[in-house]
Amino acid sequence: MNFTISKEVLLNNLLVAQKALSTKTPAPYLQGIKLEIYQNELIMITSNSDISIKLSLKDESLHVEAVGEVLIPGKYFVELIRKLDGEVISLSVVDDNVLKIVAGKSDITLNMLNVEDYPHIDFMMNDNPIKIESKVMKSIIKQTTFATSAIENRPILTGVNIRVDGERLVAIATDSFRLSQKVIDVPTNLDNMNVVIPGRSLDELIKILELNLEEVLIHLNHKSILFEYGNILFQSRLLDGNFPETSRLIPVEFPIVIKFNKNDLFVAIDRAALLSSRETSASIVKLYLRNDNGVEITSNSPEIGKVVEEVQPVEKPIGVPIRIAFSSKYFLDALKTFNSDQVYVKFTGEIRPFVIEGELDPGLVQLILPVRTE
Amino acid sequence: MNFTISKEVLLNNLLVAQKALSTKTPAPYLQGIKLEIYQNELIMITSNSDISIKLSLKDESLHVEAVGEVLIPGKYFVELIRKLDGEVISLSVVDDNVLKIVAGKSDITLNMLNVEDYPHIDFMMNDNPIKIESKVMKSIIKQTTFATSAIENRPILTGVNIRVDGERLVAIATDSFRLSQKVIDVPTNLDNMNVVIPGRSLDELIKILELNLEEVLIHLNHKSILFEYGNILFQSRLLDGNFPETSRLIPVEFPIVIKFNKNDLFVAIDRAALLSSRETSASIVKLYLRNDNGVEITSNSPEIGKVVEEVQPVEKPIGVPIRIAFSSKYFLDALKTFNSDQVYVKFTGEIRPFVIEGELDPGLVQLILPVRTE
Repeated sequence: MNFTISKEVLLNNLLVAQKALSTKTPAPYLQGIKLEIYQNELIMITSNSDISIKLSLKDESLHVEAVGEVLIPGKYFVELIRKLDGEVISLSVVDDNVLKIVAGKSDITLNMLNVEDYPHIDFMMNDNPIKIESKVMKSIIKQTTFATSAIENRPILTGVNIRVDGERLVAIATDSFRLSQKVIDVPTNLDNMNVVIPGRSLDELIKILELNLEEVLIHLNHKSILFEYGNILFQSRLLDGNFPETSRLIPVEFPIVIKFNKNDLFVAIDRAALLSSRETSASIVKLYLRNDNGVEITSNSPEIGKVVEEVQPVEKPIGVPIRIAFSSKYFLDALKTFNSDQVYVKFTGEIRPFVIEGELDPGLVQLILPVRTE
Repeated sequence: MNFTISKEVLLNNLLVAQKALSTKTPAPYLQGIKLEIYQNELIMITSNSDISIKLSLKDESLHVEAVGEVLIPGKYFVELIRKLDGEVISLSVVDDNVLKIVAGKSDITLNMLNVEDYPHIDFMMNDNPIKIESKVMKSIIKQTTFATSAIENRPILTGVNIRVDGERLVAIATDSFRLSQKVIDVPTNLDNMNVVIPGRSLDELIKILELNLEEVLIHLNHKSILFEYGNILFQSRLLDGNFPETSRLIPVEFPIVIKFNKNDLFVAIDRAALLSSRETSASIVKLYLRNDNGVEITSNSPEIGKVVEEVQPVEKPIGVPIRIAFSSKYFLDALKTFNSDQVYVKFTGEIRPFVIEGELDPGLVQLILPVRTE
């Protein structure tokens, strides 16, 4: 194996590939980046227990002297390439299993891993992928993944449920204290699907989607989902098991509706959260819709002090006075997902789940369970 | 106590005062900020085991209704003031030991600490302070403090030794593996001094000096040193004990001198450091001045690989070929302290301390002990 390539092109692709590198693994070969060099193409493969990435480079800066395949220790390789001077990097195999890297005035040899040890990874593509705008995919991930469960005692809740069902794609995440749901319209000719993608995989996928290409193709299989994005194949395992049926959790009628300026509400809750009692891990604040249609956000910690924030709704609220207590973190997390400047907070009762919707965010619902106090 | 003040003015001063707040302390009153309100002046005092800060505010936005003094839980107060809306903040004492804070649409009560518990702190000023440009003080701290010892087994080495001796001020730090020395000229009418200031105190002082006022006055006393900087008094305890006599550690004659472009040398060592053997905590690289006047920076890790970097000196080196091994971290730390684009690296022998000096950094010497290899 012997080739030269632009440093910038190599580095940019390595930065994508390294997102699937294992750092701690009992299998040292998973700490490696597999390079396959063909006459006009460089392929990089990385994989860990959740995701696998395959990149195909056919860059004009690629000049191949000798084809071959190698397995390079990932962490050192990426750091070295990042720090090298020079516009062009030359890589070649010398001796047995030693990689020689030459760039600028640097001359580096790197002991390689044994490429024979690397498992074969199937990147499962099919003929009828779902085509979706990548900015839509990004917003689905941003608006739901944060609500997945961080604890593993119900593994299925660590993932985001994605269903295609007729003309709708529904993405749902819940940790059983809150729920995020995003619905978008899709073409009618799609196969139905119902899968649960690990939240951690989506956290990595969204970083790659920052490349801002036009669209992403979704290839669905029995055990895995593959996102095709430009020259990148990003494959994630799926979670086994049935995602809970959540459709009946979201109330349909709301006797109490308050419309807020999102930022006014956010800063009031954020301030109140500072002093709220830390008995539970999340700090609890209260919302009080008064008889005079004013709203107070309050918190109270006997040891530290008390905050009372006045927030003026942007319209006369609908419904009767209500007092409701909730996790400030869950409320702030939810507010951050809206693009709208104005949001509706909708209640059915003081101890019933309530929802937040955005004036300009069709299809997005954030549901939060209140907390009982006193 | 009852007053109003501009939020911005209050916050900016709190951000200085909080640098002396104790976070973990057996004495809860040291987690407090003491406010003393006089008719035309607000004084803030904070203190921990190393440093004490006193700020005097006579801002035109300060309007005092009632004088008094209080002790406020520091962490909550700073965070609250940071997050408040509104340009003006009103603070008053209500009930017994409860502070009321009103700003914008926020109404906050904060339980205070008992101001009677707060110790009296003497800020020791004298009549003949040393006057020094604050940018000079900043460079003294930046160029020496990093070389103090981080471990406490010889406490005196955790500080920077500052001596005034005739017309010279000498600042020295050493962890016994490297030494930084900065010498500046000072007026001749100064009292001699010889003190050791905790490195941690200087790390906080330098943040405050970012305010970029013209000059700083240094008041020296038996047990403490006080820096007067605008409306800020910053006092640090001094370390007890004798700082080691280091003047004979720095060689006077150097048979081998190599002049480098600082950046070329830095990136070469930085790359070599990536692959060097991690047997010791710091990664070791080698410098080799060849017969043909070229210089190689190399590192070698049997498990990982090998780096050879060619660095061209900017002038023909003086002296004979040399091979010397050193901690890459110490060398890079030292290089960062120079303003010069070109530096001299001066050797007396392969196992003798070597020094780095900058073409445009008079008075600054960085000394490093080499490492024996093989």
